[in-house]
Amino acid sequence: MVFRRKPRGRQFFDLFSTAGTNIAASVDVLREFVAAPLDRRPVLAARMHELENAGDDATHAIVDQLNRSFITPFDREDLYLLASRLDDVVDHVDAAVDFANLYGIGEFPEGVADQVDLLGKAARLTADAMPRLAAPADLTSFWIDINALENEADQVYRKLVSLLFSGRYEPLEVMKLKEVVDELESAADAFEDVADVVQTIAVKES
Amino acid sequence: MVFRRKPRGRQFFDLFSTAGTNIAASVDVLREFVAAPLDRRPVLAARMHELENAGDDATHAIVDQLNRSFITPFDREDLYLLASRLDDVVDHVDAAVDFANLYGIGEFPEGVADQVDLLGKAARLTADAMPRLAAPADLTSFWIDINALENEADQVYRKLVSLLFSGRYEPLEVMKLKEVVDELESAADAFEDVADVVQTIAVKES
Amino acid sequence: MVFRRKPRGRQFFDLFSTAGTNIAASVDVLREFVAAPLDRRPVLAARMHELENAGDDATHAIVDQLNRSFITPFDREDLYLLASRLDDVVDHVDAAVDFANLYGIGEFPEGVADQVDLLGKAARLTADAMPRLAAPADLTSFWIDINALENEADQVYRKLVSLLFSGRYEPLEVMKLKEVVDELESAADAFEDVADVVQTIAVKES
Repeated sequence: MVFRRKPRGRQFFDLFSTAGTNIAASVDVLREFVAAPLDRRPVLAARMHELENAGDDATHAIVDQLNRSFITPFDREDLYLLASRLDDVVDHVDAAVDFANLYGIGEFPEGVADQVDLLGKAARLTADAMPRLAAPADLTSFWIDINALENEADQVYRKLVSLLFSGRYEPLEVMKLKEVVDELESAADAFEDVADVVQTIAVKES
Repeated sequence: MVFRRKPRGRQFFDLFSTAGTNIAASVDVLREFVAAPLDRRPVLAARMHELENAGDDATHAIVDQLNRSFITPFDREDLYLLASRLDDVVDHVDAAVDFANLYGIGEFPEGVADQVDLLGKAARLTADAMPRLAAPADLTSFWIDINALENEADQVYRKLVSLLFSGRYEPLEVMKLKEVVDELESAADAFEDVADVVQTIAVKES
Repeated sequence: MVFRRKPRGRQFFDLFSTAGTNIAASVDVLREFVAAPLDRRPVLAARMHELENAGDDATHAIVDQLNRSFITPFDREDLYLLASRLDDVVDHVDAAVDFANLYGIGEFPEGVADQVDLLGKAARLTADAMPRLAAPADLTSFWIDINALENEADQVYRKLVSLLFSGRYEPLEVMKLKEVVDELESAADAFEDVADVVQTIAVKES
C-alpha cells in the first residue's frame, strides 16, 4: 500500500488560504452591515462574531501545525507572525461592527463606504495571495498593491476625520463615529502588516 | 579551588523573573490606586513611578547581559523582544495611574475594577511563567490563558466605552476617563504581546 | 579594464543615510510649520508631502537593493525592518502637519514647540547614526540617548494632554489638537522603534 504525501508545506498553505477566505468573508459582512437597516445589524454583528471565532480557530490550527512540524516551508516565526497579522485584520473589522452596534450609531458618514470598499479590495488581494504563498517571490506586486490601497485608505480616513471635526456632529457623536472609523483604518493598516510579513518572507527567500 | 557555575542561562531567567515580579507589584499598586481616596493617590502614583524605573532597570540589565553573553539560552532577539514587551506592560499601567492623577479624575466607573482584576490575573500568570522560561514548551497553557484573559478584557473594555459614550458623562470627562481606560486596555494587549514572544520561543524550540 | 567595487554593504549604508537625512529635513519643515503664519502652512504641508514621498522612495530603494543582493551586511529582515521604522517617523510627522492643516487649527499650545524640539534632537541623532551603521556596536549610546529623549517627550506629552483637558478648550478643539499632539508623540515612539532595531542589530553582531 502506498500513501501519497501532500507536498511539503501544503498543510500550511491550506490553512493560510482558509484564513484569507475568512478575511474576505468578514469584509463582506462589514459591507452588508454598513448598508443595512438598524434592525438587521444585530444579526450581522453575530455573524461577524462567528467569523472572528473562525479566524481564531484558523490561527490556533496554524500554531498547532507549527508545533507538530519538524520542517516548515519558511521560518517558523514568520509563519507564526503571518497568522497573527491575518487574525488582527478580522479583529479590527469585528471591533468596528461591534462598536457601531454597541453605541447605537445611526447612519454612517458617506466616507465610511469608501473605507469599506478599499478594505474589500485589500481582502480580495489577500484571499488571492494566500494560496500562492508557496512562491513568495511572485507576491511582490501584492505588497505594492496593498501599500497603494493603504495610502488611499489614509486619504479617505483623513477626509472623514475632517468631516467629523467640522462641527456638523455633537462631540459625543464624533467620539462614537471616530471609534468605528479608527477601527476601519486600523484594519487597513493591518492588511499592510500582513503584506509586510509576506514581503519579509519573500526577501528571505530571494 | 572549584567555582561552581550557575547553569547556562540562569542569569537570564533570574532577570526575567525579576521583571515578572515587578509587573505583579505594579498591578498591585494599580489596584490600590483605583480603590484609594483622592488624597492617597499621589503617594501611590509615586510608588508606581518607582516600579516603572525598576522595570527600566530590569530591561537594561537584560540588554547588558545579552551584550556580555557569548551564548544565550534562546535567540538573542527574542530575549531582547521579551524584555521590551514586559517593559511595555509596566509603562501602560504607569501611564494609566499617571493620567488619572494628572487629570484629577474623581470616581472611576465600576468597569475599571473589572479591568484591573483581569490585569491582576494576567500579572500573576506572567510572574509565574517567567521563572519557568527554561522549559518554554510547558508554557503553551500560559499563551492560551493570557489570550483568554485578553478576550475577557476586550469585552469589559467595550462595555466600559459604551458606558462612557452613553451620555452620562460630559465630553471632556469622557475623554479623560477614556485615556485611562485605553491605557488599561493597552496593558491587557501588552500581556498578549508578552505571551506571543514566549510562544515564538516555544515554537522555535519545538 | 578594472572595476573598483564599493566595499560590501556600502550601498545599504548610503541608502539608510539618505533616509536619515530625509527625516531630519521633515522635522525641520515641521518646526517651520508650527511657527508659521496660517497662510504659509499649505506651502509647508506640500513640501512635507514631498519629503514623505522621498521617504517612500528611499524605503523602496532599500527593499529593491535587498531583493538584488546576494549578501547583506546584516540580517535581511533587520534591514527591511529598519527601513520600515524610518519610514514610520516621516509618516507620523507628515500626518501631524496634514491634520493641523486639514482641521484649520489656529495657534498651537506652547507644549507643541517642546515636542518639536525633542523630535529635532532625535532626528539629528538618527541622521548622525545612519552613516555609522557599519559599526553598530558603537551605536549603543544612540539607543540610550533616543530612549532618554522618548522619556522626556512622554513627560511633555502628558503635560500637554493635561492642558488640553483643563477646560480651557472646547471639546471639538481638544479632539483636533489631540490628533496632532498624538501624531507627534507617535513620531517620538517611532524614533524609539528605530533605535530598537539598531540595538537588535548591535545585539546580534556582538
